[in-house]
Order: sequence, then structure tokens, then C-alpha cells
Amino acid sequence: MSGLLLMRIIPFIGSFICLILAIIFASLVRKKSRGTTRMKEISDAIFAGSRAYLNQQARMMGIFFVVLEILFGVMVYFGYLEWPSLPAFATGMGFSLIIGYIGMWISTTSNSRVTFAAKEKSLGEAMNIAFTAASASGLLLGTVALFDTAFWFNILYWYYGRGGADTVSSMGSVVNILITFTIGASFAAFFMRTGGGIFTKAADMGADYVGKVESGLEEDDYRNPATIADNVGDNVGDVGGMKADSLESWVGAIIAAEFLGFLAFRSSPLLINSIIMPMIIATAGALASILAIFIIKSIVGRYRENATVSMLTITTLAGLFITVAAIIVMSFFTVKTILGPQYNFLFYASLGGVLAGFLIGLFTLLYTDARYRPTRNISESAKTGPATVVVNGLAYGMESTLLPALTVIGVMLFSFFISNGSSDPKMGLYGVAVAAVAMLAVTPFAITIDVYGPIADNAGGIASMTEQPPAVRKTTDKLDAVGNTTAAIGKGLLIGSAAITALALGQSYFSKIELLKVDVALDFMRDPKILAGLFIGVILPFLFTSLLIGAVGNAANKVVVEARKQIKDILANKSKGDPRAFITIVTRAAQRGIILPGIMIFVIPVVVGILLGPGGVVALIIGTLLSGFAQAIFMANSGGALDNAKKKIEEEGRAGTPEHSASVVGDTVGDPLKDTAGPSMNILIKLISVVSIETAVLIADLYGKLFHF
Amino acid sequence: MSGLLLMRIIPFIGSFICLILAIIFASLVRKKSRGTTRMKEISDAIFAGSRAYLNQQARMMGIFFVVLEILFGVMVYFGYLEWPSLPAFATGMGFSLIIGYIGMWISTTSNSRVTFAAKEKSLGEAMNIAFTAASASGLLLGTVALFDTAFWFNILYWYYGRGGADTVSSMGSVVNILITFTIGASFAAFFMRTGGGIFTKAADMGADYVGKVESGLEEDDYRNPATIADNVGDNVGDVGGMKADSLESWVGAIIAAEFLGFLAFRSSPLLINSIIMPMIIATAGALASILAIFIIKSIVGRYRENATVSMLTITTLAGLFITVAAIIVMSFFTVKTILGPQYNFLFYASLGGVLAGFLIGLFTLLYTDARYRPTRNISESAKTGPATVVVNGLAYGMESTLLPALTVIGVMLFSFFISNGSSDPKMGLYGVAVAAVAMLAVTPFAITIDVYGPIADNAGGIASMTEQPPAVRKTTDKLDAVGNTTAAIGKGLLIGSAAITALALGQSYFSKIELLKVDVALDFMRDPKILAGLFIGVILPFLFTSLLIGAVGNAANKVVVEARKQIKDILANKSKGDPRAFITIVTRAAQRGIILPGIMIFVIPVVVGILLGPGGVVALIIGTLLSGFAQAIFMANSGGALDNAKKKIEEEGRAGTPEHSASVVGDTVGDPLKDTAGPSMNILIKLISVVSIETAVLIADLYGKLFHF
Repeated sequence: MSGLLLMRIIPFIGSFICLILAIIFASLVRKKSRGTTRMKEISDAIFAGSRAYLNQQARMMGIFFVVLEILFGVMVYFGYLEWPSLPAFATGMGFSLIIGYIGMWISTTSNSRVTFAAKEKSLGEAMNIAFTAASASGLLLGTVALFDTAFWFNILYWYYGRGGADTVSSMGSVVNILITFTIGASFAAFFMRTGGGIFTKAADMGADYVGKVESGLEEDDYRNPATIADNVGDNVGDVGGMKADSLESWVGAIIAAEFLGFLAFRSSPLLINSIIMPMIIATAGALASILAIFIIKSIVGRYRENATVSMLTITTLAGLFITVAAIIVMSFFTVKTILGPQYNFLFYASLGGVLAGFLIGLFTLLYTDARYRPTRNISESAKTGPATVVVNGLAYGMESTLLPALTVIGVMLFSFFISNGSSDPKMGLYGVAVAAVAMLAVTPFAITIDVYGPIADNAGGIASMTEQPPAVRKTTDKLDAVGNTTAAIGKGLLIGSAAITALALGQSYFSKIELLKVDVALDFMRDPKILAGLFIGVILPFLFTSLLIGAVGNAANKVVVEARKQIKDILANKSKGDPRAFITIVTRAAQRGIILPGIMIFVIPVVVGILLGPGGVVALIIGTLLSGFAQAIFMANSGGALDNAKKKIEEEGRAGTPEHSASVVGDTVGDPLKDTAGPSMNILIKLISVVSIETAVLIADLYGKLFHF
Repeated sequence: MSGLLLMRIIPFIGSFICLILAIIFASLVRKKSRGTTRMKEISDAIFAGSRAYLNQQARMMGIFFVVLEILFGVMVYFGYLEWPSLPAFATGMGFSLIIGYIGMWISTTSNSRVTFAAKEKSLGEAMNIAFTAASASGLLLGTVALFDTAFWFNILYWYYGRGGADTVSSMGSVVNILITFTIGASFAAFFMRTGGGIFTKAADMGADYVGKVESGLEEDDYRNPATIADNVGDNVGDVGGMKADSLESWVGAIIAAEFLGFLAFRSSPLLINSIIMPMIIATAGALASILAIFIIKSIVGRYRENATVSMLTITTLAGLFITVAAIIVMSFFTVKTILGPQYNFLFYASLGGVLAGFLIGLFTLLYTDARYRPTRNISESAKTGPATVVVNGLAYGMESTLLPALTVIGVMLFSFFISNGSSDPKMGLYGVAVAAVAMLAVTPFAITIDVYGPIADNAGGIASMTEQPPAVRKTTDKLDAVGNTTAAIGKGLLIGSAAITALALGQSYFSKIELLKVDVALDFMRDPKILAGLFIGVILPFLFTSLLIGAVGNAANKVVVEARKQIKDILANKSKGDPRAFITIVTRAAQRGIILPGIMIFVIPVVVGILLGPGGVVALIIGTLLSGFAQAIFMANSGGALDNAKKKIEEEGRAGTPEHSASVVGDTVGDPLKDTAGPSMNILIKLISVVSIETAVLIADLYGKLFHF
């Protein structure tokens, strides 16, 4: 039994190591100079703006939180939920918000330090600071994810197992509550990612249009007062939002695997081991990420003075390889030790998951990197105007859905059938979930590289706004370029794993329904209610995309109106401008933009469930998953390719030409797709699943009482 | 038995009436003056270009035809198909090509007559000519659709029933061959619609960009040699392609209903009646269309001299109402007479179908007409540049998928459950198919209004190219506006019915599999192969869209290069330009662009079938249907709204302003979505279904032999 205790403790140890390192890294960054007074001022303004936004967001989340806790409370009262769901939901949401705040704080306190290093030291030193700060953020995510899942598992394990209760039934309660705990993380991610996405793109579009197109100013020109809002956006959307999103994915995958492990091992003595194993693989991922971070740091430290972009790019890529390889090795021993060699097929499933994630990442690179045909062709088509740029961008984005989809299908079939050797579909499903956990184990490292980008971007903004010599901006631009390749792969990997996680969550819902002994025949050709559920699911991503990019458009319009007014006064030397006005405008618009989608995410599964029954809800989940995955990849890659096509034209020194203007239009169209709607798809898919799970018993009951056809 | 004979003859009578009237209308048009020598020249050039394109297309179709007939022949040899499939496929493809040619001929011989009437006579007289020509086209479609389906039904009824064969088994063979006959129509539609769509938009984008944007010429300026190709495109894409598409939809719906009628009434004495009924409803639709055409013609004739746009618009709308009302009345008596009052629920199903189609049409109007919020907002957003126009256009297009999807879901559930009163799902499915047939019965009238548009458009092109006074172009522009509202409703209706038809075809496939006694459990949560099939289906429309709009982009680039060269020489008075060069370029590009999609449509269902089994194919069909429907509506409405937003700015006299340029970019992005990829979705969906049906026995056999998991 001490083996079991060790297994239960390992995630806490991993979490603790991550925390210590995160603190060390953050304090290393704090020792560096914050730069000139002007740099500090701007950095402070960005921090203040980000905090103001997050505070406003936290208030809005608070309102939803209270309403939902009351609803859940009512459900507990009527016996449709167990009471530990209430605190579980609270911590899921709370931790997500906290790492959003801390991540934002780390980014905004490091940005001017990076600018200063780029000015006074070297590319290598600037990279060192930015990467160290980003590592602190990434490891903090590891801390929270491991702690949160392990904490609830152990608490519930004790609570339901006290007094020597039957293991199977107590573990059933444990995994049920665990599932409901992810709903908090998902819901927080929805607010942070979607609200942040609206904020960042509205500020970006508005600032760019008035600044660059109408007034002929450069990007981040100090005379454009909307620029601060744009930089705030990078922190609240690309740092805070992205972190909450990844936390949600990771926790969701772990807990879905635990649920499916429970189902597969119900009558096995390895029941608890199977439930703990996903947490151990996640811990392995955190440790692998730490290894990679240290290797990168030592290489960067050694070549600090004479580092080049390509060398640093290769270093971050190598980091990703190391993480992946270490995860594979550790998974092998994890499966062998925890479940025994007869379950080796689960290692193959996790191997398939890791490789598939990596493959999807490479496909993302293929479609969005200027070295390859798609992006090159898009930038080429700028010669015939903005329309052909956009059309080509959309076309390649749509084409790019094929290979990732086939990969997800492949890994799904592979991990199912390899685990199904004993003809036990439950084991097959557990295999699929383990593949998702393994794929996502790379999260701390992926997030490190992802957070690195906005820090470099912010540093560049500060360089421009403080009117540094062009060489400084050039260094920060190089810095920004370093992480791009690795970040593109990481992004693709996260999208791919979201699909598999959602699949595992959908399976969990379905299994929960089955446990309720509700008859669900999913025959969409004999039962039009199932077909209707699939249909609604397929439409949902279209509807959400339209709501979100519509919100960006509205907010951007307001930014444009205000910026026109302010820039006119600034250029006439009548005023110094009021950057805070933009933050207020965009914050309000972002918050307003997520109210309707936020309500819909809770209402739709319930309404579909009441009208079409539990089978219709399963179909809804799957329809949303398939269509949302396609939309997510389409939008991410269209936007990425359009962005890089523009950058390619700029790098070729053609800024200011008609081709460049055409590519700017393309980039502006792609931006809300890539940074607002696209990333929200993952959360939409998973929220629909977890809300369905949360309300499953209620809906089955209501449907049974109301309809009998 | 004389009642049965009468039923069998009615479609022929309807077909004959349509033919006579089409001939009369066509000769009425030919009596009008062809206009000035220059008008005749241009009209002849458009005709020659269109014919050249269709000839090239026919050759390409011939190659595919021979290859497919050989493959089908091999399948017949090995007993996987019955031999009458071979000639059935040939006529399905042949008739489609013939009405493409004749429709093109009617349009190109009437265009200059309309221009001349607009110049010398009045708006009313111009409308009269254009509408009469379009009616001839619409009724010809009725002729072919009714004749073809009735012909094959009667031939096969005789062939399989000779020597007093058992009714049920002989009718089984009849409906099986009938299903395979639609494959010819669908395949021809694919070539004509998709190839034509690439042609028309490549010519349009290229001509517009070099002419309007680069050289500052007006639309259809006589100095732009690519303009002829643009006008040819209207005829081959919007006339020939659209007609083939509608024929395919209509025939597909009728035959799917016959197949499902066979299944629902297998053990009933009303078996033959149930199979004939869809053809009678279709005949009723043709007669209702004739009624509406006569009423419109008499109103236009009465007010010929002082007609206004709004009056004529209301007249065409009234025509649509009359058609719909007459179809409803005739369906009521058809169901009562042919099946008896105890089957009244099938009348309700058809009522639901007609109303749903009409409703979807209204939603199309809501999202694409400049009177309503979406298009108004898009045109408003032109103030902040092209990117916001495009983003808004895409957002509203995505939003616009919701209401049509809910309507289709609603009519599907309604017609299923109202027909399922006797708890017989087969009857429920027949009800759904009858709803589709009723919805599509309006086709001849809808096509009349649809063909009317390109004729008016061509007439305007001729007015500009022959340098008529601006008043003439103004009159033809008004003429063009007349049909827009009704055509928008008609287009929505056709998209809606395509979804239901595809559903009925999918059901036919599924039922065919069931009859083969292959076990297909469609449980996508227990069998990942079903999920994989759904997934591939959802991706397919994205892939096709990318291939098609990519082909448009490539072809447009070539047009731009050639047009730059020629226009330079023309403006320098060095040459008169060579319009035929463009037709050659675009024809080649269009044909090349459909080879890969054309092959994929045949290969994918077979490969999916062999790897994932018959259940995977059912899932493939449904996935393609759901995602393709959403894509079709999204692209049609995005494109429509962007087009009308541009027109609104032009009508407000803001042509030449930056807002106008922004809206032109939006329109150019929307064009290939609306006119190339969007309409191809319907055909893709149905081709995937019919190819699956055609290869069902083969695939079931291969899958059984190759895989056993």
C-alpha cells in the first residue's frame, strides 16, 4: 500500500518542483534592470491596463459564478448533483483566474527588461530574460494543473472511501466529482480566452487601421494612443487567455482519462492505479519540460554574446524534441510500473498520441510558415490585390484541415484498436484518453514557448513607443521570430489534443448516461432526433464564430472612432492622448461580447437534452467536436498564413508597396479568426461536453418525464 | 388498372405541355429584333465563347463518361450492378448536357434583344423579353425532368414486370436502377456547375481587377477584352451550371422518394401508387409554374409602357406565391386520390416541405438584401476599410446558417413524426422524402427567375460594350434588380431542399445496405469507425471549397496577366485585343480545376467503404451533408451580402470613394464563395450519396472479404 501512497504523492512532488523553479525564475528576471524611466512608464501603463481588464473580467466571472453556484446548489438540493461539486467548481474557476493574473504579472514585469537588454546587451541576453520569464509562467501552469487534480483526487478519495466504503462505488463518486470540477476550469478558460481574444483583436484592428492605414504611422508609434491597448491585449489574450485555455485542456484530458480508466478497470484490482496513471503521465510531462527548459537555458547562456536567430530557433525546437522524447521514455516506465507489462498497449497508445500531436504541429508549420508553398503563394498573390490574398488565405486554411483530421482519426483508431485487443471497447476508449493525456503532457513546455512570443512582442512595442534607435526594434523583432516555429508546432499540438480530449469527454458523458441505464441508441439513420443533435452541433461553431468575430468588429469600430479623434488632436499637438480611454472601450466591448455566448453554452445542451433526449446530447457533443475542430484548424491556419505572408513581404523590404497594403488587409481579416474565434472553438467543444455531463442526470430525468416519443 | 395507366401517363403529359410552351416562348423571343450590328456581333461572340466552353466541357465529360461506363461495365460483369444502369447513367448525363446547351442558346440569343428593347422600347418590354426567354429555359427543365424520370420508370416497370414477375421484387429492381440513373444527372451537374463556377468567377475576378482597379475602366468597358469572357461566364456558370444543378436536385429528390416509397409500401397494395406519387407532385409543380408564368406575363404585358422596378419585383414575388399555393392545393388532391385519405399525413409532410423551403428562402433574403441589417452593416463597415467588410461578411454568413438549419431540422422531425403515426419509421422516412419533393416542385419557376438574372446581366454588358447612352445601361440594371428578391428566395429554397434530398438519398443508401443484410450499427460512440466516417464527411466540404476557390484564384491570376498585356496594347491603340484568348485560358483552367475533385468524389466513398465498412460510408454521407449544408449557406449568404453591400454603395452614388473600393474587395472575396464553391456543395453532398449507393454491393462485399474487425 506504500506504493499506492507514493503514486498519490508524486503529482504533489511534481507540482512543488514546478512551483520552486517558477519562483526562482521569476526572481532571476526581477534582478534585471527595468530600463529607462520612459520604458518603466510604458511597462507600468501596460500592467495597469492589463490589471484593469482582468479586474473587470473577474467581476463578470463573479456574476456568472454566483448564478451557476446557485443553480448547481438547487441541483444538489434535488439530488441531481453531489455537494462536493460546488467547491470543486469554485477551485477550477479560481485557480484559472489566479494563473491568468500571475502570468500577466510576470509578462508585464519582464517586457521592459527585455527591451532594455536588447538595447544595452545582446540578442542572447534579451532571449534569456524573455525565456526565463516565460518558463516561470509555463511551470506555474504545471504547478496548478498537477496540484489541482491531485488535490481533488486525494480529498475525494479520502471522503468517499472513509469508513471502508466499497472501492468501486467510492471511486465512481470520485471520478464523477472530478469531471464536474473541470467545468470550473473550462468556464474560466472560456471567459479569459474568448474575452481576451475579443480585447486583443479589437485593439489591434482599431489601432492598426487608424494608425497605419489612415495616419501613416508605424506599428506601435508612440503618437498612436491605441497602441497601449494593443499591448495590453497581447497580455490578456495571448498570455492570460492562452494559459487558462491550456490549463483547461490539460486538466480536462487528465480527468476524462481517469473517468474512462474507472470504467475500463471497474472489476480489476488495478482500478485505483488506472485512475492515478494519467496524473503520473502529466507529472512526467512537467519534469520533461523542466529538463528541456534547463537545456535551452544553458545553451542560450553559453552563447549569450553571439547568438543568432537560426541558432536560437533550433535550440527551442530541440527543446520540444527533448520534451517529447522524455515523455515517451517516462510513459513507458509509468505504464510498466503502475499497470504492469500486460498493459503495454497503453504505452503504444500514448506513443501514438505524442507522435500524432507532433505531426499535427508539423502540419501547422507547413501551412503557416513562409518557407513553404501555402504562405509563399499567399504573399505572391498580393500582386493582384487584397481580395486574392484573402481568398487564397481562406482556401489554404480550409485545405489545411485535411491532414490534422486524418491524423486525429488515425490516432483514434490506432489507440482504440490496439487497446481493444481483449475485445473490450471500454479499454479501447481508455487507450484513446491516455493518448490525449500523453499528447498534452508537453503543455508546460508548449506554454513556455507560447508565452515567450507576447513578451518579445511587448518588448518591441516598448522599444517603438520609447523611440529607441531602429536597431533595438530590429533585435526585439528577431527575438519574436525565434519562438515562432516552435510555437506554431505547439499550437497545432494543442488543437489536436483538444479534439481527442473532447472525444474522451464525450465518451465520459455517454458512459455516464449508460450508467444511468438510460437507453441511448445512437442510430442517426433510424432516429431523426440523433441526426438533429448532430446537425445542431455542426452549426454551433459557425454561430459562435460569427458572434465572436462580430464582437471584435463592433469593438474595433469604436476604437477607430476614438482613435481618429485622439490622433487628430495629438498630431496637432493639442493633447497627449488618453490611452486609458481605449482600454475602457475595449474592456466593455469584450465583456459584452461574451455574455450571449456564455449563456448559450449552458442553455443549449440543456434545451437540446430536454427536446431530443440524452442521445441527442451525445450527438450534439460529437457534431460540435467535428465541426469545431475543422473550424479551429481552418481559422488558426488561415490567420497564421495570412500573418506570415504579410511578414514575408515586410522582410523583403516591400513595406509601403501596394502588395504590402494588400497583405495588411489579409492579415487584418485573419487576425480575429486566428486569435479570437479559432482558439475559442476548443473551449466551446469541451464546455458543451462538460456542461452536458454536469446536467446529465437532470436532463435524463426531465426528458423521461416530459416526452415519451 | 386504367387509373394506374393514367398515373403513369400524367408526367409525360406534363412534360409535353412544358415542351410546347418552351418552344412557343423561344420563338416569341426570336421574333424580336436582335438590335444593332454591334449588338449582334457581341451577342454572337458571347454565344461562340459559351459554345466553345461547353464543347470543351463535353469532351472532358466524355472522357470521364467512358471511364465510368467501363468501370460500371466491369461491375455489371461481376454482378455488382444490373445492366440497365449503363444506359440509365448515359441518359442522366446526356439530358443534363443537352439542357445546358439549349439553356445557353436561349440566353445568348435573347441578350442583345433585351438590350435593344431597353434602348428602343421600355423597361416593361425588356422585362417581357428576358422573362419569356427565361420561362422557355425553366419549362425546358420541367420537360426533361418529368420525361426522364417517367421514361425510365415506365421502361423498367415493363422490363422487370414482363412475364408477370412478382410485383415487389420487380419494383425493387426498378427503384434500384432509378437510383443509379440519378448518378448521371449528378455527375453532369458537377461538371457544369463546378466547371462553370470556376470559369465565371475566374473571368469575373480577373476582368474586374485589371479593368476596374488597375486601369480605371468601368464594368464591361468595351476596351477590356476580358469582358466577353466574363459575360460568357454568366451563361455557362449561372445558366448552364445552375440548370444542371437544379435538374440533378429535382430528379434526385423524386427518385429518393420513390425508393423510400418502395420500402414503406412493400407489403401494401398501394406499392406502385407510392412510387408514382412523387412524379405526380413534380408534375403539379410544373403546372403550377406555368400558371405563375402566365399570370406574370399578362401583368407585365398590360403595364408594359409604364412598369416600375418595385411593381415588377412584386409581380415576380407574387408569381412565387402563386406557384407555392398551387403546389399545396394540388398535393392535397394528389395524396387523397393516389393513396387515399388515410395517408393525409403525407400531405402535411409536403405542406411542411413547401413552407420550410419558402421560409429558408426568406432567411436568405434577410441576410443578403440591402434592406435588412446584415447587408446594411456590411456596407456601413466599408468606412473602416476592406478588412472589416470581409470580416463582417464572413461573420454574417456564418450566423445565417442557424435559422435554415433549424428549419431543416424542424421539417425533418415534423415530416418524420407525423408520418410515423403508425410507428413505422419507413413511413416516416417516406414522409421526409415527400417533403423534399414538394419543396422542389417549385423548381421550374425558381429556375425561370434564376435564368432571368444572367440574361439581364448580359444585356447590360452588351449595352456597355456597344457604348449605348447611360440610360440604356440604367434600364438594364433596373431589369437586373427586378429578379433579385425572388431569385434570392429561390436560391435559399434550392439549398434547403438539397439538404433534405441528400438526407433521403442517404436513407436510400442505408436501406439498400440493410436489404443486403449487412449489419450496420451506427453507434458512433461504441464504434470509432463510424466516428471516423463522420469526421471525414465533415472535413470534405472544407477540402472541396479549398480546391475550388484555389482553382478560381489560379485561373484569375492567368487572366490578370493576359489582360494587363492586352489592355496596355489596346489603350495604346496598338491592337484591338483578343477576347478569345481569355476564353481559352479560363476554359482550360476550369477543366483542369475539376479533374481532382471529380476523381475524389468517386474514390473517397469507395476507399472509406473498404477501410471503414458500409457503416462508415453512411457516416461519411451524413457528415458531408451536415457540414456541406452549413458551408453552402455560409458561402452563399456571405457572398450575396457582400455583393449587395457593394451595390448599395453604388446606388447611393458613392462609386469611386474609398468605401466603394473597400466594398469591391469584399465582393471579390465573396464571389468565388457564392458562385463557385457554395453551389458545388449541394452537388458534392448528393454525389457522395449516389456514388455510395452505386457501389454499395461491391463495397459490402470487399469490406467483408478484407477486414473482419
